[in-house]
Amino acid sequence: MRSIPLRGFDQQMSSLVTEHMESHGTQFLRGCILSRVRRLPDGQLQVTWEDQASGKEDTGAFDTVLWAIGRVPQTRSLNLEKAGVDTNPDSQKILVDAREATSVPHIYAIGDVAEGRPELTPTAIMAGKLLAQRLFGGSSDLMDYDNVPTTVFTPLEYGCVGLSEEEAVARHGQEHVEVYHAYYKPLEFTVAERDASQCYIKMVCLREPPQLVLGLHFLGPNAGEVTQGFALGIKCRASYAQVMRTVGIHPTCSEEVVKVRISKRSGLNPTVTGC
Amino acid sequence: MRSIPLRGFDQQMSSLVTEHMESHGTQFLRGCILSRVRRLPDGQLQVTWEDQASGKEDTGAFDTVLWAIGRVPQTRSLNLEKAGVDTNPDSQKILVDAREATSVPHIYAIGDVAEGRPELTPTAIMAGKLLAQRLFGGSSDLMDYDNVPTTVFTPLEYGCVGLSEEEAVARHGQEHVEVYHAYYKPLEFTVAERDASQCYIKMVCLREPPQLVLGLHFLGPNAGEVTQGFALGIKCRASYAQVMRTVGIHPTCSEEVVKVRISKRSGLNPTVTGC
Ligand SMILES: Cc1cc2nc3c(=O)[nH]c(=O)nc-3n(C[C@H](O)[C@H](O)[C@H](O)COP(=O)(O)OP(=O)(O)OC[C@H]3O[C@@H](n4cnc5c(N)ncnc54)[C@H](O)[C@@H]3O)c2cc1C
Ligand SMILES: Cc1cc2nc3c(=O)[nH]c(=O)nc-3n(C[C@H](O)[C@H](O)[C@H](O)COP(=O)(O)OP(=O)(O)OC[C@H]3O[C@@H](n4cnc5c(N)ncnc54)[C@H](O)[C@@H]3O)c2cc1C
Repeated sequence: MRSIPLRGFDQQMSSLVTEHMESHGTQFLRGCILSRVRRLPDGQLQVTWEDQASGKEDTGAFDTVLWAIGRVPQTRSLNLEKAGVDTNPDSQKILVDAREATSVPHIYAIGDVAEGRPELTPTAIMAGKLLAQRLFGGSSDLMDYDNVPTTVFTPLEYGCVGLSEEEAVARHGQEHVEVYHAYYKPLEFTVAERDASQCYIKMVCLREPPQLVLGLHFLGPNAGEVTQGFALGIKCRASYAQVMRTVGIHPTCSEEVVKVRISKRSGLNPTVTGC
Repeated sequence: MRSIPLRGFDQQMSSLVTEHMESHGTQFLRGCILSRVRRLPDGQLQVTWEDQASGKEDTGAFDTVLWAIGRVPQTRSLNLEKAGVDTNPDSQKILVDAREATSVPHIYAIGDVAEGRPELTPTAIMAGKLLAQRLFGGSSDLMDYDNVPTTVFTPLEYGCVGLSEEEAVARHGQEHVEVYHAYYKPLEFTVAERDASQCYIKMVCLREPPQLVLGLHFLGPNAGEVTQGFALGIKCRASYAQVMRTVGIHPTCSEEVVKVRISKRSGLNPTVTGC
């Protein structure tokens, strides 16, 4: 990894994701930049990298190399500067405002090519629909980029919607944020006696009643399936009080979300012990 | 089965559940009452039943017999009539009002023992909490039995929250109900080339904009995990318009819920064809 895992995501959740992978054998090299890949006589791939902290080079031999280094939009060939459309010279992405308009007001950009947008299929689709409705349907509804749910399909899946704890604190101040959290054990882990020490839920709320939910973070099996419906709840401005009034579905993992009662501020043990 | 499968549930969904099981080899006998189980010399169990329609008896030999015939509360031994607490003589359950009060106003009954309540763990817990808050916490909040989510853990799981199509039509009239629906194919079924003809979503809404969601019915893998979050949305009085503004999580099954666009009334083909 060049920088940190899951940059832009809630950092406590990111740590739990990588801890889980490490406890199952994945080795992470942090702050390393790859410089060379060479095929060895036996067919293996010899990879050379530089550790940025020490400045030292190191190598290793691997069966498979998979690049997951992000992508850059092909805007340079478009001659955008001729039309007066501004881009970010680093990311090569097009600068847009809340209406998806570029620096040329009648030229719009949506999806991965636009600066600062989550690179996700349903986000691009929704942004396009809303833009079309504004341009041709008399609507004034803007795309809500704060409440885009997403899931990281790591071995232990991480689903989230809304603000990370860091972002909530940055926007509202530590004093105005209440974080509820719980470690829980999926029923199917119990049967298989699988370790569940990273199965964790965090709900970031405003502190003042009824405690509007700002963000939900769920680490566990089927996180994508779990998170989607809560994204509707947050879209409907769900409060913590409403979450607590929602009846659980037993036995599921998602019912743990409607049972998170321990706040970080209380310092109490957030481990769910029973049904 | 004595009567119909999943009595009390949306009947179209129930049919899809049993169709799926039948297509995978389960044989259903409808309108049959068991009269005898006898162990045969080879250890098998000979079961005798009566077909209520024809009045004819039939038998079969099975390895295992599992009773799933519901349960009756042990109220007869409680001498409730001495205290003036009314029960339903058929179900032996205690009659209660919206405040969970019995016919004796200071005696309450919650959970499975109360007449007409869903027999579910989190329902009993929530009803108890709310009752305690009303009795001792100065609250006036009643338990909302309409929006209790639940899941039937059949091979293809069926999750639902809110009203069935039948109940919505009975309460609001056919003219005021709009039902959106979709057949979809879970990604994991595609890889395994599994048949997905019963994977189906139905959203029952009021017809008048913004089309309040009355009920959600989801048939597919992990239905419990999918349904829980939508139960929060419905608790927050989600409208169909808000569902359509919720960004999907791709690829999941639950994203199909925020993509149901075909109304039954339109008569259009509700099969989801792509991403
Ligand atoms: C490996 C991988 C896995 C992913 N997994 C997920 C996932 O699980 N979930 C998820 O939500 N998202 C995922 N994404 C992200 C998702 O694919 C993108 O966010 C989404 O495709 C963005 O849509 P878009 O329309 O903005 O861009 P694109 O889908 O990239 O479409 C841009 C189109 O423009 C065309 N084009 C480019 N230049 C020109 C030109 N000069 N003239 C004409 N046409 C041009 C391109 O050929 C392309 O067809 C993944 C992406 C990758 C690479
Ligand atoms: C096989 C089975 C599977 C189930 N699966 C699920 C599921 O997956 N999800 C779900 O949500 N629900 C499930 N349920 C339903 C769930 O168990 C009940 O809805 C729930 O337990 C109801 O809680 P309760 O407190 O009302 O009653 P109970 O949990 O039955 O508690 C009643 C208590 O009262 C005691 N009692 C009875 N008479 C007396 C007396 N005279 N004096 C003192 N004590 C007495 C009993 O011993 C018992 O402990 C299942 C039920 C069964 C039978």
